[in-house]
Amino acid sequence: MPVARSVKEALGSSSMIRKMFEEGRILKEKYGDDNVFDFSIGNPDLDPPEIFHKTLLRLVTEDAAGSHGYMPNAGYPGVREAIARKVSREHGVAIDGQHIIMSVGAAGALNVILKAVLNPEDEVIVSRPYFMEYRSYIANHGGRLVEVEAEADFNLNLDAIRQALNEKTAAVLINSPHNPTGRVYPEKTIAELAGLLLRHGENTGRYPYLIADEPYRELTYDGVLTPPLLCAYPHSIVATSYSKNLSLPGERIGYVAVGPQNGDKEDLINALVYTTRILGYVNAPALMQRCVAELTELKAAVEVYAARRAAFKRVLDNAGLTYINPEGAFYIFCKVSSAASGSGIGDDIAFVETLKKHLILGVPGSGFGAPGWARFAYCVNEGVISRSQDAFKAACREFLK
Amino acid sequence: MPVARSVKEALGSSSMIRKMFEEGRILKEKYGDDNVFDFSIGNPDLDPPEIFHKTLLRLVTEDAAGSHGYMPNAGYPGVREAIARKVSREHGVAIDGQHIIMSVGAAGALNVILKAVLNPEDEVIVSRPYFMEYRSYIANHGGRLVEVEAEADFNLNLDAIRQALNEKTAAVLINSPHNPTGRVYPEKTIAELAGLLLRHGENTGRYPYLIADEPYRELTYDGVLTPPLLCAYPHSIVATSYSKNLSLPGERIGYVAVGPQNGDKEDLINALVYTTRILGYVNAPALMQRCVAELTELKAAVEVYAARRAAFKRVLDNAGLTYINPEGAFYIFCKVSSAASGSGIGDDIAFVETLKKHLILGVPGSGFGAPGWARFAYCVNEGVISRSQDAFKAACREFLK
Repeated sequence: MPVARSVKEALGSSSMIRKMFEEGRILKEKYGDDNVFDFSIGNPDLDPPEIFHKTLLRLVTEDAAGSHGYMPNAGYPGVREAIARKVSREHGVAIDGQHIIMSVGAAGALNVILKAVLNPEDEVIVSRPYFMEYRSYIANHGGRLVEVEAEADFNLNLDAIRQALNEKTAAVLINSPHNPTGRVYPEKTIAELAGLLLRHGENTGRYPYLIADEPYRELTYDGVLTPPLLCAYPHSIVATSYSKNLSLPGERIGYVAVGPQNGDKEDLINALVYTTRILGYVNAPALMQRCVAELTELKAAVEVYAARRAAFKRVLDNAGLTYINPEGAFYIFCKVSSAASGSGIGDDIAFVETLKKHLILGVPGSGFGAPGWARFAYCVNEGVISRSQDAFKAACREFLK
Repeated sequence: MPVARSVKEALGSSSMIRKMFEEGRILKEKYGDDNVFDFSIGNPDLDPPEIFHKTLLRLVTEDAAGSHGYMPNAGYPGVREAIARKVSREHGVAIDGQHIIMSVGAAGALNVILKAVLNPEDEVIVSRPYFMEYRSYIANHGGRLVEVEAEADFNLNLDAIRQALNEKTAAVLINSPHNPTGRVYPEKTIAELAGLLLRHGENTGRYPYLIADEPYRELTYDGVLTPPLLCAYPHSIVATSYSKNLSLPGERIGYVAVGPQNGDKEDLINALVYTTRILGYVNAPALMQRCVAELTELKAAVEVYAARRAAFKRVLDNAGLTYINPEGAFYIFCKVSSAASGSGIGDDIAFVETLKKHLILGVPGSGFGAPGWARFAYCVNEGVISRSQDAFKAACREFLK
């Protein structure tokens, strides 16, 4: 019994995203970096902005005494205050630093939240397709993920959510801008969801949390904006990171934000601080906390991703592939068609395998609970995108024949 | 039901160490930093060594492309190789980078290990007194902590461990140099423990892991050395960090090391990489990984702590207190005597409260499962230690009267 049974089982069905990321490394070693078109993982190739570099360099040069030591588990008080001002602006609320708990990235934030709120057998509703790690995060803390169908355009299906709600529902977990579809849930949808959850709370006495995983909040296109959430529903909790907007995924820096109107706020905040500690995070990395606190005015390089999105759409258009037009994030969700498939939906795993023969790496929709689709991450150099054109065309010809 | 029941219950009995740390902050604001004698927490006041600063500054100045991005979940291959060379030297083995998984501190490492190996209801044997967070770390992953008594000198009690072993025993978790007693388990004890676990494995078919939490490995005095572990028992796993030896507790950087002789090594390593990912750590912070990999030859400032230990022993001697002579780490475990107590063992919580009136902060032994004792962390300036003399004397007079 060398490893836990649940882990042993899971090892067999490991993350398709990470699998592709690792395969990409091997292909690049074999064929050279420039000859592999790796759209597998949301690892921004953009380096962090110059002001991040300058700020980090200044902080490291100053090297204030104790600056790598422990601080309160929730983070430096000054950092929490700075983040609270940013969150207040973004979410239409007025909160102070008490409402912010610094975290080890958004994945750390989600685990801290779920550990704090889930009782055994509690349910968390998630709209499909979704980032598959959610299933593990929820199971880590004894909860159960309940999938509901999205609308055809991948907006939230409120009827499906309503039907899934019951007395075991601890939370609805949303992700907007959405991985893998690029959908941004409109303000109207959020308002209707809030109404639905409030009515459910009034009827049952249990108000589900609305947990928002939103590392892509700033990355939106064509004038679409990610609507504020904390002002929309009192029992909402935001998990986010600087992984995507500042290209810092390896540094594991993010935070949890709690709304001001939550009646049980004090218990909730104390619980989040406690779970940060006992899950072994202890605190978010010290130096990165101080760094991001100085960069709250910084905007993500949206225009760069907008150009890449346009380039990727051209590539897919020329290859005859259809897709959901991404409103945010840096993923494009592409429909897999196959001449052999009567329904017009092809086998996404076979499609991704065909692409790989042409040195294109994407992730099958099955890796997000959506067979028949494929995800491509366009957080890579525009040159890689345009150079992939011929490979895409050839792969599609081969797959469709 | 705003927070999970188990969390709600735990909030009432939160960590005595962290409570003292937070109270210390408040006392210092009121009375001034110099007038509070804060021996509550293992937060080294020594700044990291100059070479750490230089290395960090160079890495940040170079700012290589992609240096804040994702890497494999286990860490940078080159970093893992560098750490493997250090671990090979320290543990009398020859391992390569595959045996190292970089972690978010030692607390992160322990959670990653426990999640990887525990089945529901599995037991982990821990010698009392112990760092109370172990209880939460084990419970996080469905396991149960089984306490066993130590010897009178706080060495491991092998008879007690033998009696606690059964078919549900997944691991024995040790911490040497030991928090809170400063004990270093001798090589002979480790060898006997290994023999005991091997015999148990032969008899039952289940070899318990020996999990070693050893952030204080390098911090030993008077020629005592922390014996190698990976060569002593094939099923051993090391969890450690740079929090204590390089004074980086806020940066959350550490690693897991797996022995070379473990028959199920591949499964175990894959499981550790997987749990690093799904627990939401994803990877150890990127910049700090690269930094510590260049500092594997660096030694901890043992001589500074040795001088502090001597100063603290003088203070306690002069106050008439008895204690365990620390062989390692930077804690001194002090016996609480009381004239009012027939057994000669006083009430540690009352003692610590009396100390607090004299602006001395320590942690009651009850916070480690050892009533009648108190822990003082001497990772503070020697001046603070010597200036605490009068306060210690006055507090002891008051407590003993």
